[in-house]
Amino acid sequence: MSDDFDFTVEDLGKRTIESPISLSRISGDFIANYVSDEEFVRYRSEVKLGDQPKVERKMVFEKAGPREKIYFSPNHVHAGIVTCGGLCPGLNDVIRAIVRALWYLYGVRRISGIKYGYKGFLPEYGFDIKPLDPDIVDDIHKIGGTILGTARGGGKQVTEIVDAIERLNLNILFAIGGDGTQRGALDIANEITRRGLKIAVVGIPKTVDNDFSFIDKSFGFDTAVVKAVEAVTAAHMEAHSQINGIGLVKLMGRESGFIAAHTALASHEVNFVLIPEVPFDIEGPNGLLAHLEKRLEKRKHAVIIVAEGAMQDQLVKDSKTDASGNLKFADVGIYLRDKIQAYFDAKGMEINLKYIDPSYTIRASPAEPVDSIYCERLGNAAVHAAMAGKTKVLIGLVNNEFVHLPTKVAVSRRNHVDPEGSLWRDTLEATHQPILMVNSKTLSDALGVKPAKES
Amino acid sequence: MSDDFDFTVEDLGKRTIESPISLSRISGDFIANYVSDEEFVRYRSEVKLGDQPKVERKMVFEKAGPREKIYFSPNHVHAGIVTCGGLCPGLNDVIRAIVRALWYLYGVRRISGIKYGYKGFLPEYGFDIKPLDPDIVDDIHKIGGTILGTARGGGKQVTEIVDAIERLNLNILFAIGGDGTQRGALDIANEITRRGLKIAVVGIPKTVDNDFSFIDKSFGFDTAVVKAVEAVTAAHMEAHSQINGIGLVKLMGRESGFIAAHTALASHEVNFVLIPEVPFDIEGPNGLLAHLEKRLEKRKHAVIIVAEGAMQDQLVKDSKTDASGNLKFADVGIYLRDKIQAYFDAKGMEINLKYIDPSYTIRASPAEPVDSIYCERLGNAAVHAAMAGKTKVLIGLVNNEFVHLPTKVAVSRRNHVDPEGSLWRDTLEATHQPILMVNSKTLSDALGVKPAKES
Amino acid sequence: MSDDFDFTVEDLGKRTIESPISLSRISGDFIANYVSDEEFVRYRSEVKLGDQPKVERKMVFEKAGPREKIYFSPNHVHAGIVTCGGLCPGLNDVIRAIVRALWYLYGVRRISGIKYGYKGFLPEYGFDIKPLDPDIVDDIHKIGGTILGTARGGGKQVTEIVDAIERLNLNILFAIGGDGTQRGALDIANEITRRGLKIAVVGIPKTVDNDFSFIDKSFGFDTAVVKAVEAVTAAHMEAHSQINGIGLVKLMGRESGFIAAHTALASHEVNFVLIPEVPFDIEGPNGLLAHLEKRLEKRKHAVIIVAEGAMQDQLVKDSKTDASGNLKFADVGIYLRDKIQAYFDAKGMEINLKYIDPSYTIRASPAEPVDSIYCERLGNAAVHAAMAGKTKVLIGLVNNEFVHLPTKVAVSRRNHVDPEGSLWRDTLEATHQPILMVNSKTLSDALGVKPAKES
Amino acid sequence: MSDDFDFTVEDLGKRTIESPISLSRISGDFIANYVSDEEFVRYRSEVKLGDQPKVERKMVFEKAGPREKIYFSPNHVHAGIVTCGGLCPGLNDVIRAIVRALWYLYGVRRISGIKYGYKGFLPEYGFDIKPLDPDIVDDIHKIGGTILGTARGGGKQVTEIVDAIERLNLNILFAIGGDGTQRGALDIANEITRRGLKIAVVGIPKTVDNDFSFIDKSFGFDTAVVKAVEAVTAAHMEAHSQINGIGLVKLMGRESGFIAAHTALASHEVNFVLIPEVPFDIEGPNGLLAHLEKRLEKRKHAVIIVAEGAMQDQLVKDSKTDASGNLKFADVGIYLRDKIQAYFDAKGMEINLKYIDPSYTIRASPAEPVDSIYCERLGNAAVHAAMAGKTKVLIGLVNNEFVHLPTKVAVSRRNHVDPEGSLWRDTLEATHQPILMVNSKTLSDALGVKPAKES
Repeated sequence: MSDDFDFTVEDLGKRTIESPISLSRISGDFIANYVSDEEFVRYRSEVKLGDQPKVERKMVFEKAGPREKIYFSPNHVHAGIVTCGGLCPGLNDVIRAIVRALWYLYGVRRISGIKYGYKGFLPEYGFDIKPLDPDIVDDIHKIGGTILGTARGGGKQVTEIVDAIERLNLNILFAIGGDGTQRGALDIANEITRRGLKIAVVGIPKTVDNDFSFIDKSFGFDTAVVKAVEAVTAAHMEAHSQINGIGLVKLMGRESGFIAAHTALASHEVNFVLIPEVPFDIEGPNGLLAHLEKRLEKRKHAVIIVAEGAMQDQLVKDSKTDASGNLKFADVGIYLRDKIQAYFDAKGMEINLKYIDPSYTIRASPAEPVDSIYCERLGNAAVHAAMAGKTKVLIGLVNNEFVHLPTKVAVSRRNHVDPEGSLWRDTLEATHQPILMVNSKTLSDALGVKPAKES
Repeated sequence: MSDDFDFTVEDLGKRTIESPISLSRISGDFIANYVSDEEFVRYRSEVKLGDQPKVERKMVFEKAGPREKIYFSPNHVHAGIVTCGGLCPGLNDVIRAIVRALWYLYGVRRISGIKYGYKGFLPEYGFDIKPLDPDIVDDIHKIGGTILGTARGGGKQVTEIVDAIERLNLNILFAIGGDGTQRGALDIANEITRRGLKIAVVGIPKTVDNDFSFIDKSFGFDTAVVKAVEAVTAAHMEAHSQINGIGLVKLMGRESGFIAAHTALASHEVNFVLIPEVPFDIEGPNGLLAHLEKRLEKRKHAVIIVAEGAMQDQLVKDSKTDASGNLKFADVGIYLRDKIQAYFDAKGMEINLKYIDPSYTIRASPAEPVDSIYCERLGNAAVHAAMAGKTKVLIGLVNNEFVHLPTKVAVSRRNHVDPEGSLWRDTLEATHQPILMVNSKTLSDALGVKPAKES
Repeated sequence: MSDDFDFTVEDLGKRTIESPISLSRISGDFIANYVSDEEFVRYRSEVKLGDQPKVERKMVFEKAGPREKIYFSPNHVHAGIVTCGGLCPGLNDVIRAIVRALWYLYGVRRISGIKYGYKGFLPEYGFDIKPLDPDIVDDIHKIGGTILGTARGGGKQVTEIVDAIERLNLNILFAIGGDGTQRGALDIANEITRRGLKIAVVGIPKTVDNDFSFIDKSFGFDTAVVKAVEAVTAAHMEAHSQINGIGLVKLMGRESGFIAAHTALASHEVNFVLIPEVPFDIEGPNGLLAHLEKRLEKRKHAVIIVAEGAMQDQLVKDSKTDASGNLKFADVGIYLRDKIQAYFDAKGMEINLKYIDPSYTIRASPAEPVDSIYCERLGNAAVHAAMAGKTKVLIGLVNNEFVHLPTKVAVSRRNHVDPEGSLWRDTLEATHQPILMVNSKTLSDALGVKPAKES
Repeated sequence: MSDDFDFTVEDLGKRTIESPISLSRISGDFIANYVSDEEFVRYRSEVKLGDQPKVERKMVFEKAGPREKIYFSPNHVHAGIVTCGGLCPGLNDVIRAIVRALWYLYGVRRISGIKYGYKGFLPEYGFDIKPLDPDIVDDIHKIGGTILGTARGGGKQVTEIVDAIERLNLNILFAIGGDGTQRGALDIANEITRRGLKIAVVGIPKTVDNDFSFIDKSFGFDTAVVKAVEAVTAAHMEAHSQINGIGLVKLMGRESGFIAAHTALASHEVNFVLIPEVPFDIEGPNGLLAHLEKRLEKRKHAVIIVAEGAMQDQLVKDSKTDASGNLKFADVGIYLRDKIQAYFDAKGMEINLKYIDPSYTIRASPAEPVDSIYCERLGNAAVHAAMAGKTKVLIGLVNNEFVHLPTKVAVSRRNHVDPEGSLWRDTLEATHQPILMVNSKTLSDALGVKPAKES
């Protein structure tokens, strides 16, 4: 993988206004210092001994934090906040942090919540604007969801959105959402540039799947794992209490298995984890069903986690065989449930299969403290960035430091569980599942797969 | 701060035995690879543009993980596990992970739990040894505490301990404990070297205060914050529901304020946080009591967190004035509670002060999922290190990678909240407390403190 | 409703052995007294002024508790415990209490767990017996499920079961299960009588639906509501955060709406509750869909709870129209979800419907403290009853007193939510749903339904 | 105990206004019926066979619920709500239920919250009135405490309070508080009668100790036990993990041991429970310390619960010996902690004693679902009672029915754990503590105490 990314952050212009926040310029006075644009954090920490690379802009991220000079005069600021896409724990914490940082740190008094994602900008929906202040957001971190409402889509109507931003007279927009949302935000910001407007667009990346690239982790992820573990615990108890009990839990993860792997590691009670990044067969002597049968024979119960994006190939293939039509809504959990039931029915073997899909419960949950802290700090950093006139930028945590990530670079890639890395290795060690459950002789030969171990 | 640490890890000898774990040597085969001693992780990620430093051993940590060749023959191994010092969430998770990794990954069958810390080695106590296997540890992560028992002290009796290790015929010792414990482990390992024995001593750093140096965070810390937030929520409710209600919560942190700061950030309901790293006055026009009074006048209620190590100077001074005697047990929570009550009594102002000390409840709590995952992976890495013959080494997480930390270097420093860093800055932004609550004219002048803001 | 039930409890024979439990026969000595067979508790507490009814056996239940003389000699006792039917929070608590009371209070040393319900008695399954003692059950209340395993069915094979009981030499059988299980237990006990054996059969009624008759409530019910409320909270958050968001939660309750009604009362966030006891229409001007549409127009979001046994008539009718075949597994949640979606699709109105079925998570949950206490006391009372030679009897809580309920009477009826009682009245007050959502002109006329209020 | 209580409820006058709630007068129409003043619930359910008592007013309580005719015209009503005394889980649930029932069921639009208990009526404090409506109370059940604030005292200033009630033009007052509060409410209501005013005073009994007489249980009690169990779990883990570890937990209960006993039953991990109702010695061969020592010798760890009102005699005696002065604040937890430490110090035996006082955390907790339901229904019943013109009355749950309790009768007694009843018997069975830990030869002889069993 190349490290050649342009990590330069775009500024709206020269910063001439003194920050209203009283910080220090010197060390040793027990007072926090302003952060300068010359403080950087490395992207990669893995190295080779003896290398002597020159530190270049393309390897390092700008540190986030309050600047001594800012771009916007606080009493001229009208800031908008929009939340897009599916629910994720911590949305309200981020909204709260942004509102409070704008209000208390910078003295901004005009803050508007955009309702139901980008659709809230579109006149055709007729949604009103929700004025925000510290009183309104005081307790919102105690509930899940988003007080602004959210929706998918709408981000393609760039012209209408920028028209609306102009009508509202916003000069800062905070966009909280996934990579689709951030691509939309970039389009909006580019249209803003085209029109010669001075409006900062700052994103906070949101993905409950934790597959946003470059950053250490995304907010809400730890909370999601807490809730997913509860579902697995239930599945385990059901499996453990029934004749040949099988607990099957579908977890989020369209293109990545982070939630699935972390949940298996945390729960200590999972026997098979199926994620999009690792190929596996259902049928055949080295397929899931054969291994599941062996497990039942030995231990009488089993727990399986399947990430929602796993097995898309098989699903597509099977769906083609079975029927024509729209494959978008093929549900891997239901598919796998029926496959397992059919397999053991055919063998005349009694099983008791309980299928649990906790997705909505997970997404709608309030943030756990570790996420609350993260959201609070993301919100602060986003406000500092916006007030300094940074734009087309996301806030991220990299090697435990908050940094500015150019949106363009951030949305160019997606993070995946590395099948050969330590996370997946530790997951396999926790589940004792076979390293690879594939039959293809060709593949096996090519890869030199040793006989799978099972316990 | 200098980066000149010798991060070289000591090996017991040449590794000649092939690992029983089936991993891969090649990339692209969907099978995890062995980790070599030549894979490194940088210690620092902050950099200056244009620098061109040579990557030297003193800047980088060896990556943890399974080696292709190992030092010990699994069926010759007798491993011991000892937990020392105060309780910390996750101890049982670590024990469980070590036992399971030894047993299932390497086939080790002799694993002994040492009871009640280093005292378990001392004949004078007469504690028996607790044999460990996967069945015994299967569900222990669901309860708090440590199934081995723990105790403070005992680590100075190095000769007796190594005698006991020889008697037991241990060739691996896992020591789970704080920096006192790890200093003891280093002394033990040095005595082992002096005797010419081949015994690996591998530590897992434990500090609920999160002030172990070099590492990203210590296990149990996130769980501690979850539980601390619950106590603060109760304090807030009490404060909010009474006439001039004050909730005072004492949290752990003898020399550092990490729990206090994170709890304030997570709870969103704290008005004053007092930590050891930041000086403050109780009395005087810019002291805590004056600011507390202003807060009550404005908002009618207040919540204060005090770290147990805060205000030690004042406590010592006051104790000297009040009485002679042992200061070791001076309790800052009680001290502050009485100070506050006396102040408002003297003013004839009714307050309702509720003091909460949740320390034991926090320490005895089972690990939250995020810590369970961390403990599982720490335990795996510790076993890989020991089987490879690494010794005098700790397992740590640095920039999100598990690494080997030489014990000698690790215990040479302690981590602190940087009063001028982003964590404390964000904490002040969350509490709105004055940047510095000190009166000393000299200090103020010297530091150029601006008038404190309060809201 | 007639009060004419024969509440007389059957005894195995004269009690001649002195209880090994040291209790008192006198009041005022601070020592608990034995309970005699002459202590009774009324079944009904509602009365009319001026009545003067004679207290007869058919109105009163025998109090449970330790008898001064017992029937079985503890060292001759071999007790069996079986758990049947679906999971319910508290099963392990009951098992634990029975084992401990037998062991510590009476000194019984032979206790056997029957695996997987009544099937565990049947040779065709070949399940082994699980010996039980206090060590084995010490921590089982901390996990959900049942350590004995459970299964439905098997209770009809009375001859084989009593053969097995004879082979095992059991003289006490504790049967934990629902009314099917208790009917089975009665058949078994009758067969025991027919064979002239002296074996006590004591049941602990289990129904997560809380529809066991005569008793105040069944164990696990309060825990089920706690967990159901969590699901509703998630549904509410999803509904609240989406354009025309609808949260639909299916809860347990095949023939009764207790969980549904209590959950609506506890959550304060439900707009429509549909239970088997109250008729309602889906279509039509006074049907659910019309009211749901009005709710969305006014408030933009809605939360619906449907008990699994609701709408069986409509389901059957619809299923007949749609297809032939087995109706037993028709799922009201899926049915309603599709009905709602189709209705608004037809109107071209965007809704965001999230369907949550938390049943397995609820059933597999460990007991909350209020249920733990109840289970502990049920178990104690069951052991006292069995040791005293009571048989064909259940343990119940009636007017806050533990009593002996003859199994025959107990299984003759089932409890229902009274549509005209205070529970349903308070539920309607909490949801503001229309009192009756039915269209049938005939019914309306007949019943004199006033125009429904909606808010 | 005599049953001769006058349970007649006082009415303000004839009810002439038709209720705005549409209920039914007939059975069988699926619509809830109004409740009449002629529906009664028995106070006692224990009976003797063959008795034939006439049902008299003094044995029965009037059922609570909506009356067909009411006393107050809703648009003339101005209702006040006051919360007094210490915090208790569920206060906000009760406030919420009252506000919503007044607003939605009866259409009352003037509802005022009195701040900080009875002090909110007294001009000397100058507290403002908090207007209440459904929006304000919508989410308050999710937080602990009381949004009205609370305070002890103030209830003796009856004249000033009734003056304030007149000034405010209140015609209904809801008083939520303990027996001190309800005695105050009775004095206020009597003064109202004396002045010839038509103001209904309706109380909701609040005692976290659960020692209110006549009623099944008080709101918040089940939640308190949940939270107390968490503290005991921590104490157990600490005790279990240390050399001779002792966990000592002080729980609420000034005059009764209900929380202590229920917590011991629920946690399954307690070895000694000390409550006010049962005498015990600390010293001496049959005292607590001797039994504690035996327990440590056998099992190495112990958990003790002490109710705050236990051992008051010894505390007073000891305090007199030790020092003169105010005994009111003598803290049994601290006292016992020091006693235990001194005892083992004197013996030279190492113990590790952890003392936990979770009282504020318990009191400030939000209500668990089972309490939320109870509070919701209490609030509804209180509003129905007040609108019907009932006064000097409390709402209670008796034999699972909501009833009207005359305040005068209710405050005349207090509930206690019966040392000879089934609750304490089951508690002893759960803890295995000696039936009586007393030395006094006289007492022992008199009571015929058998040798205590310990295990």
